[in-house]
Amino acid sequence: MQKTVFYHAGCPVCVEAEQQFVGALDPQKYDVEVVHLGEQKHRLSEAEQAGVKSVPALIVDGLPFHINYGASINDLR
Amino acid sequence: MQKTVFYHAGCPVCVEAEQQFVGALDPQKYDVEVVHLGEQKHRLSEAEQAGVKSVPALIVDGLPFHINYGASINDLR
Repeated sequence: MQKTVFYHAGCPVCVEAEQQFVGALDPQKYDVEVVHLGEQKHRLSEAEQAGVKSVPALIVDGLPFHINYGASINDLR
Repeated sequence: MQKTVFYHAGCPVCVEAEQQFVGALDPQKYDVEVVHLGEQKHRLSEAEQAGVKSVPALIVDGLPFHINYGASINDLR
């Protein structure tokens, strides 16, 4: 199983991405951790180090994928 | 099986998204069609009608998800 992290902030764009996108990942291959950066601000720097510029974003194999645009990570501090 | 369409233009961002992302979708649930809009310009209007503003983008359940940013669809005409 490969670990992926989905960073979001509870925004409508985030919810849509989570429902449509995270649920579409192969459950045989991916273990997805969902992190609400608005509620877990102590994980903001971890997200930034992974290359996250905006939410929603998904980290797959260490690479950040920004999915549509909900909010800048700078606005979540 | 649900049909999804991945629109791209052969750009490095597109290739990365295709390799990491499209390959991560649950093959039990999704049948992914990959469309190179630079080579299949006759499908540009179809992509625009689906809400695609830039590539790479994936249509899931009728909704457009823009994954990072490779190129504007306006630059592919």
